[in-house]
Amino acid sequence: MTYSASVVGASGFTGGELLRLLDGHPEFRITQATSRSKENKTIGHAHPNLRHRDLRFSHPEELESVDVLFAATPHGVSMERIDAFQDAAETVVDLSADFRLDTESQYDEWYDGHERPELLEDAVYALPELTRDELEGADLIASGGCNATATIMGLKPLVDDGILTGDEQVVVDVKVGSSEGGAGGGEASSHPERSGVVRPYAPTGHRHEAEIEQFLGLDVSFTVHAVEMTRGASATCHVFPGEPVSKGDLWGAYRGAYEEEPFVELVAGGGGVYRYPEPKAVAGTNRAEVGFELDPSNKRLVVFSAIDNMMKGSAGQAVHAANVALGIEETAGLDFQGLHPVGAP
Amino acid sequence: MTYSASVVGASGFTGGELLRLLDGHPEFRITQATSRSKENKTIGHAHPNLRHRDLRFSHPEELESVDVLFAATPHGVSMERIDAFQDAAETVVDLSADFRLDTESQYDEWYDGHERPELLEDAVYALPELTRDELEGADLIASGGCNATATIMGLKPLVDDGILTGDEQVVVDVKVGSSEGGAGGGEASSHPERSGVVRPYAPTGHRHEAEIEQFLGLDVSFTVHAVEMTRGASATCHVFPGEPVSKGDLWGAYRGAYEEEPFVELVAGGGGVYRYPEPKAVAGTNRAEVGFELDPSNKRLVVFSAIDNMMKGSAGQAVHAANVALGIEETAGLDFQGLHPVGAP
Amino acid sequence: MTYSASVVGASGFTGGELLRLLDGHPEFRITQATSRSKENKTIGHAHPNLRHRDLRFSHPEELESVDVLFAATPHGVSMERIDAFQDAAETVVDLSADFRLDTESQYDEWYDGHERPELLEDAVYALPELTRDELEGADLIASGGCNATATIMGLKPLVDDGILTGDEQVVVDVKVGSSEGGAGGGEASSHPERSGVVRPYAPTGHRHEAEIEQFLGLDVSFTVHAVEMTRGASATCHVFPGEPVSKGDLWGAYRGAYEEEPFVELVAGGGGVYRYPEPKAVAGTNRAEVGFELDPSNKRLVVFSAIDNMMKGSAGQAVHAANVALGIEETAGLDFQGLHPVGAP
Amino acid sequence: MTYSASVVGASGFTGGELLRLLDGHPEFRITQATSRSKENKTIGHAHPNLRHRDLRFSHPEELESVDVLFAATPHGVSMERIDAFQDAAETVVDLSADFRLDTESQYDEWYDGHERPELLEDAVYALPELTRDELEGADLIASGGCNATATIMGLKPLVDDGILTGDEQVVVDVKVGSSEGGAGGGEASSHPERSGVVRPYAPTGHRHEAEIEQFLGLDVSFTVHAVEMTRGASATCHVFPGEPVSKGDLWGAYRGAYEEEPFVELVAGGGGVYRYPEPKAVAGTNRAEVGFELDPSNKRLVVFSAIDNMMKGSAGQAVHAANVALGIEETAGLDFQGLHPVGAP
Repeated sequence: MTYSASVVGASGFTGGELLRLLDGHPEFRITQATSRSKENKTIGHAHPNLRHRDLRFSHPEELESVDVLFAATPHGVSMERIDAFQDAAETVVDLSADFRLDTESQYDEWYDGHERPELLEDAVYALPELTRDELEGADLIASGGCNATATIMGLKPLVDDGILTGDEQVVVDVKVGSSEGGAGGGEASSHPERSGVVRPYAPTGHRHEAEIEQFLGLDVSFTVHAVEMTRGASATCHVFPGEPVSKGDLWGAYRGAYEEEPFVELVAGGGGVYRYPEPKAVAGTNRAEVGFELDPSNKRLVVFSAIDNMMKGSAGQAVHAANVALGIEETAGLDFQGLHPVGAP
Repeated sequence: MTYSASVVGASGFTGGELLRLLDGHPEFRITQATSRSKENKTIGHAHPNLRHRDLRFSHPEELESVDVLFAATPHGVSMERIDAFQDAAETVVDLSADFRLDTESQYDEWYDGHERPELLEDAVYALPELTRDELEGADLIASGGCNATATIMGLKPLVDDGILTGDEQVVVDVKVGSSEGGAGGGEASSHPERSGVVRPYAPTGHRHEAEIEQFLGLDVSFTVHAVEMTRGASATCHVFPGEPVSKGDLWGAYRGAYEEEPFVELVAGGGGVYRYPEPKAVAGTNRAEVGFELDPSNKRLVVFSAIDNMMKGSAGQAVHAANVALGIEETAGLDFQGLHPVGAP
Repeated sequence: MTYSASVVGASGFTGGELLRLLDGHPEFRITQATSRSKENKTIGHAHPNLRHRDLRFSHPEELESVDVLFAATPHGVSMERIDAFQDAAETVVDLSADFRLDTESQYDEWYDGHERPELLEDAVYALPELTRDELEGADLIASGGCNATATIMGLKPLVDDGILTGDEQVVVDVKVGSSEGGAGGGEASSHPERSGVVRPYAPTGHRHEAEIEQFLGLDVSFTVHAVEMTRGASATCHVFPGEPVSKGDLWGAYRGAYEEEPFVELVAGGGGVYRYPEPKAVAGTNRAEVGFELDPSNKRLVVFSAIDNMMKGSAGQAVHAANVALGIEETAGLDFQGLHPVGAP
Repeated sequence: MTYSASVVGASGFTGGELLRLLDGHPEFRITQATSRSKENKTIGHAHPNLRHRDLRFSHPEELESVDVLFAATPHGVSMERIDAFQDAAETVVDLSADFRLDTESQYDEWYDGHERPELLEDAVYALPELTRDELEGADLIASGGCNATATIMGLKPLVDDGILTGDEQVVVDVKVGSSEGGAGGGEASSHPERSGVVRPYAPTGHRHEAEIEQFLGLDVSFTVHAVEMTRGASATCHVFPGEPVSKGDLWGAYRGAYEEEPFVELVAGGGGVYRYPEPKAVAGTNRAEVGFELDPSNKRLVVFSAIDNMMKGSAGQAVHAANVALGIEETAGLDFQGLHPVGAP
């Protein structure tokens, strides 16, 4: 079966990634790509990898009727336009933060409130490895945030196995690429200023903390650094379990959680150059790499996880969620294995 | 139909790229991957993007019988082992320079001679856009070199249209990524020394000149610079035609040559950020971007072409050639569109 | 003796480089740094390397009287404000293109005309190795452009020695870093789009051709590529001399021109990793590296030259010129040797 | 007064940095630079920034008598050759780890034991901001390690002010450049594999923990990541104080510790692009940037510190220590302010 799909906000980075994935997807057909700023231009004008496609951006107010609408708009747009989105499509997949949290009070605390709080309980958070069952048949899907996804992928097995109970100190130190800043760009995003940085861009108070805490049921101490790459998010979680844990316990927890998952790779030690999760090993793919190391001297457990923020951290995750929601093969359209070697993708 | 395939020299960069492509190819099944140095290790040990594949390197002397053997070995190995390769496989695709030139005397001039010159006339040079007919049914295929491919793709339409006759001055200034140096590495390839360079690594006398001159029938003045990227080759050809040419003539020549080609994109001016060919726009793909600009003030024509040296410049071109040789759909296994944005791939 | 100095346009990249150099200069004292957009902010706000300096940007209309005024403003500003500059300072060093060309007609051809053409003949072009004598005592100095400087440094000895006569084909293929685009930044300069490029940003018609042709008396075919670095300009000149030249001729020409020059290093072959000029070897310094190679097969001479566009290509050259104009030791304030290793500076 | 100096192990990265600093130092004169592998080659062969210097590497066994000997040899060499070093020079500054720790048992625990444990108590650890008094007149100086220096600079004021008492959880997440791996290089250090990584290269058990704990008297949970830069080390310390602390307390602690220090810059919030410590803002300099942020929601204090690992993390620190030991002006030879903009230095 073929589903028609549209992408709202398609000239941005995430929008372009959605177009790329849908274009190569065996069961989706792109009906419409909207962009206010690039209306009537070809999608290749914004996304050089899609030059071969003969499709032009249309105005975001003129939505055609489709099976699935993907919204890749900035925070705040989807909550305003949700009625139009739902009028146009049976299934809406929102890639912004607008429907990720459960309650209005969380939006009051972390964002600037919410305009349509009554819809929050209908929306299904998409981190398909963890919410697969709820996604089946869902009609409003909130695709998980990039840094939150990296963190949750790393910590969830520890929570599920009772290694983390919520009383422990958990430090999450995240490193991200410049595409997280989006296609806009200002002085701090200009190449001369942004190149080669190790820049504490969210020392404290990053909004993804809300998603993580909602999902894991525990507080994390969260800091995000911008580093030199375009794509990629890497979370290093420093965890101090209350009870001693062994390597065997950890392998048990992580294998139990992820052994059957098509998009998760456990990478912990072993030989060769790539011994732990690394964002460049998953660039362009929908895979998450997850691994860990024990530090017996200070009773610490270090968990590493790496994703491509544009893929497993947004567009790939959204398509994965749509696959699950519609009953399509989960990996459809998401089988790119990634490149080796690759520089700073 | 499914063809069995093996990759000899599979732990190197090009070998890994072949494994990746064959793994995702609808009509190939990988039978064997050989590596002397990593025998018995999994292919994921060398290529982190292939960790999910349960395949181990075997010894290169123990070749299994397959339909197609891809040789990704250093220059000089294939000419030595060609009998074993041809015993093992009906079709041999060699990615080294060993069978690219037509005559022994060229090997005497540009390399250190040739051990099996009698095979040279059987071998078909693979730059499928230009040698498609000869590739059909070929059993010994010499996949074109990366810098040569970029250059030939840029200049061939001018030769075919009579704009270049062989009497003109042609300067080719190439910029390449670090993967061209292979997986070995020495001091000059170490990250601190290689990062951020604009390094004249072949100021004159690069061996790919031989391929270019053989193919185009004209001399080029060829210089190669190493620049900061891992994948990619970009050729800028400065051409001084004997007769005045117009933009219309050029569009005619290039459209005539490439309009129907699935892996060539003409990029010449237009709007947006990506107005001319750029290697990062084709990273990971088998596409070549080709474009040009006229400089009326000095009667110069500047031709730009950009490829991924690991793909259109080697492994992708080899698979493309095998597709043609075996009568498979040309684009099979080669449909990755590339990423946007991507950093320094 | 100590000279008072001001920098107009001091919040830009070149302005910041001037502040850095003047701050470390034994005979200059910074009196004023102007910036319209950052008035009243500390200079460290714009330039993190100058945080220790307790100096604030003032308004560009309120110029204090100084010995030397350095203007680091965009093209067109200096010709408008030249009277105010000359009222404020005995010596004006302009880093823009406003006073580099000799005649109004050149400005008509290459720029948008000139408002004060009568001043053009008073201005001294600053490429101190070549115009040292005229710079002594000069009161209006036009500091040479970055890409022009790299090119002229490479070709001038050939002209002076009669190896180039003006009838030859000369192709100049330049590679530059992102700081040439200045501190402003737009979409094409954003980190995700600009990273890792080999981008033909001035395929033809770059304005620096005018300076080069004025200085060398010959036409060049000039193309500029943006590559992955922040600082640096590298010019590769492909030259086809009318008469055969030997390596000895070339060493003679280049040694004759540069042997005594404190800021020029001849780098041509030899051992180690750095065998030819490379911008990263001169990053942060006022040095130019110049070298060459002969290509006997096509009677070509390839000349390489590398500079830091912010230093020898603008601010360093300006300070060098001021040193000469005022009779200060030429190397004063310009003795930084550069870093090894350094990444993509 | 002028002191004669030699550098043992001068062809490595740290050795080259010492040569550069001593060459530009007003009170040192380089007598000898040794290198086993590059004996008789010029120092410019290894270090392109020093091409102008007419000095050749000599054999490390033939040490000349000098005032100060700097040893930039790999771990284990200095403890073997210390008698020869001390015979040759009154003052020995060792940049390896061989004399940093106080006791033999620490070397048994963290390294492979020590051959000359009786010398450990004579050696003075050089982190001049903290051990200035002991350095005066010292004759055996152990220059602090790069990652340890970054960490200690960040945490020491908290210890001194009683904000950290030793009972708290302290997570230190460090990001470093490729020059930390030295000039040797292997597969993991090759440009294609090392580019663009966020690689957990010392997930646990990094040897610098020993220095940190010795110096601060507290345990830290220490993890080091390799990221895309050549120079630089950035430490992010996540601290959970037992008692509530205010921003005022923190400013008090840090200002008290560093206000008078010529090589320390406090960077905590404020405007512009560079709001917290960043390694690229100090590249090439001997400065450390230190800053912090409070996270009230989880009672966490995040401390950032950034250095150039080749400078404040090794060669710069060694020269600084020598300046103090000999009574030279502390900042002599170390006044380079750094570059803006700079890419990935």
